[in-house]
Amino acid sequence: MAEKDIPNGKGGQEVTPWEVKGNEEGKIDYAKLVREFGCSYLDQPILDRMEKLTGHRPHHWLQRGIFFAHRDMKEVLDCYEKGQPFYLYTGRGPSSEALHLGHLIPFMFNVWLQKVFKVPIVIQITDDEKYLWRGLDLEESIRLGRENVRDIIACGFEAENTFIFSDFDYVGGAFYRNITKLQRAVTANQCKGIFGLNDTDNIGKVAFPAVQAAPCFSDSFPHMFGGRKDLQCLIPCAIDQDPYFRMTRHVAPPMGYKKPAQLYSSFFPALQGESGKMSASDPTSAIFVTDTPKQIKTKINKHAFSGGRDTEAEHREKGGNVDVDVSYKYLTFFLEDDERLEQIKQDYTSGKLLTGYLKAELIAVLQKMVAEHQERRKLVTDEVLDQFMKPRPMPNIFPRSPDLQINLLPPRS
Amino acid sequence: MAEKDIPNGKGGQEVTPWEVKGNEEGKIDYAKLVREFGCSYLDQPILDRMEKLTGHRPHHWLQRGIFFAHRDMKEVLDCYEKGQPFYLYTGRGPSSEALHLGHLIPFMFNVWLQKVFKVPIVIQITDDEKYLWRGLDLEESIRLGRENVRDIIACGFEAENTFIFSDFDYVGGAFYRNITKLQRAVTANQCKGIFGLNDTDNIGKVAFPAVQAAPCFSDSFPHMFGGRKDLQCLIPCAIDQDPYFRMTRHVAPPMGYKKPAQLYSSFFPALQGESGKMSASDPTSAIFVTDTPKQIKTKINKHAFSGGRDTEAEHREKGGNVDVDVSYKYLTFFLEDDERLEQIKQDYTSGKLLTGYLKAELIAVLQKMVAEHQERRKLVTDEVLDQFMKPRPMPNIFPRSPDLQINLLPPRS
Repeated sequence: MAEKDIPNGKGGQEVTPWEVKGNEEGKIDYAKLVREFGCSYLDQPILDRMEKLTGHRPHHWLQRGIFFAHRDMKEVLDCYEKGQPFYLYTGRGPSSEALHLGHLIPFMFNVWLQKVFKVPIVIQITDDEKYLWRGLDLEESIRLGRENVRDIIACGFEAENTFIFSDFDYVGGAFYRNITKLQRAVTANQCKGIFGLNDTDNIGKVAFPAVQAAPCFSDSFPHMFGGRKDLQCLIPCAIDQDPYFRMTRHVAPPMGYKKPAQLYSSFFPALQGESGKMSASDPTSAIFVTDTPKQIKTKINKHAFSGGRDTEAEHREKGGNVDVDVSYKYLTFFLEDDERLEQIKQDYTSGKLLTGYLKAELIAVLQKMVAEHQERRKLVTDEVLDQFMKPRPMPNIFPRSPDLQINLLPPRS
Repeated sequence: MAEKDIPNGKGGQEVTPWEVKGNEEGKIDYAKLVREFGCSYLDQPILDRMEKLTGHRPHHWLQRGIFFAHRDMKEVLDCYEKGQPFYLYTGRGPSSEALHLGHLIPFMFNVWLQKVFKVPIVIQITDDEKYLWRGLDLEESIRLGRENVRDIIACGFEAENTFIFSDFDYVGGAFYRNITKLQRAVTANQCKGIFGLNDTDNIGKVAFPAVQAAPCFSDSFPHMFGGRKDLQCLIPCAIDQDPYFRMTRHVAPPMGYKKPAQLYSSFFPALQGESGKMSASDPTSAIFVTDTPKQIKTKINKHAFSGGRDTEAEHREKGGNVDVDVSYKYLTFFLEDDERLEQIKQDYTSGKLLTGYLKAELIAVLQKMVAEHQERRKLVTDEVLDQFMKPRPMPNIFPRSPDLQINLLPPRS
């Protein structure tokens, strides 16, 4: 493969779509991931160009290096500059009913991208993947997927421009043809190498990577793109999904497709710290979108790993350590105000701000955010959900380039 | 696996879904296949029971041992006797545009079964398989499939009771769910063992067996069977397809399905003899359904391997050998008149009938049969074809048991 194969298993660090494990110190070495996955850092010139082209200041997750790596963002911005359409693709494996804050990151970021670039997005719910990997019942996997879609919609996607699909519903037609094309292009050897599978794994796991790869090809969505296969795809997601897209980039050109571009985020830490694992089965490991204000307060106060000192006197003297403080980390995600964040950092590091105040700041931010999310989620009725999940023409999906509109699509009824 | 694994590779004989190769003498040792595949011979008591239940004399291919082996025919006849529904399932991999006579055998036999048992049939066109195994273009694979469907319909299936589907069209929904369920139930190890695949094969080949297995489950066809998963499936086909159904039978019970039953035929010989291979790329190896009367005559006269003697005198003295005579073999397939066939056998063996006469007899039978097929094929317009291939309710599919009709189905419009 042109890009790097099997980057894991060395130095203790292990990052796969199914497991994220830090190095000996419990840390993720992102520089190593970038090097071994063969992607690039998002640098200032790219962010500047993005701002110049869209007229929007880059999202604070871009400025703060939370989305930190990419492939082919230049090509994406070239498209945009020329008025050529591109589209976003992200997804979710529905392994649990309630999402935690880490799950929301890619969706919140994609909502912003959709708004700023005025582009369509496809969101894949890999209920088949979760069925194949976990002991889940098939119907339960589908149900969890639908529940997750409510939260995804609540993040603020535009109905006009968003297609959310469950694999169990949508596999078929042009999408199945692309899945089959991808399956013909990848050997069992390659698949096992990239994904670390072996012969005791079921054949669904061996086949699945093509299912996650196929949405990178625009003709998997004829109702949206009229069968065009030349649209650039941009995938904003967490960097652990890279194996799928390394594989896709390898096979796309000989199949007559553009390589999909990626925008990768770092991982959202567990309450217990970067080396901990957020898990739906351990409610104390994460803040869930279903948590009450009281639960949020208790969890942060009780479980959020602190970079503060053991005593107030010591803290006042030596200051707190933001590098390991989970509450501060969470604020870098959810406190948009740069000045306020910088002030908190300085005050905490200098010892002026105590852990309790830092946590109170975070608790207020999260209580507001989660409550708003819950309010928006209530608006996602079955009807709204079905609207987002219905394959349908999107005649106005490229408003920036009316001359490039997809004429194959029938007019909206 | 309960039934036997990998029966090939010993004694030179090799029978897989992709290759049929005889033993050292160029012969297929069917007894060995039955033994190693773990199926049973169709014996006279089964044929007698079939006749008693249906009121029809068994098809001459049953009487002559052309369909010679089975699994679970007792269960199928039990169903029938109790008035419980079952359905037929067969298929075709569209590797060539024109079918030869060997290709017609399973379809002609299924037409007879459908008529006699008054049961529905599903016919799978594995255009995805041929795309995965051969260098074919995807669109070409679909086109070949549609051309083949015309010949299949021309064999005489009842539109009311027949659903023909292309995988590239029909995979999705309940069918995809069953494919995924099957994929979860089979490991890469098992798949490689059963089908002789290895890690240089593409992952589509590893995944495909589940696609051929899924039609064994009646809830893959909700438009026909209203989502019921308890219907008995009977698969009449050539015995080389056995690996798929051994695999399916192994996983069906833990998945809550009945094991599919099979009725297996021997192979239709090439013109050059049993050790030859009929091939669409060698037009002299077979009679095609597109052949003209003149082509049929020429091919039989020039290429059909003869069991006759070198000179007329020697033939008159020693007689011909029907065991190796391809024209005689073909007559056992297509000359329905038992007495006439027996007479020919006696006269040929005794030396009374010369090869030329035997061939003339066959030529006349095939010219008539092929011409009639061609006439019927002309009636298969695009409209007829679309009718057969449209997923649709079949409210009258079980006329024998009106009390057991599938009430979930909407009334016919």
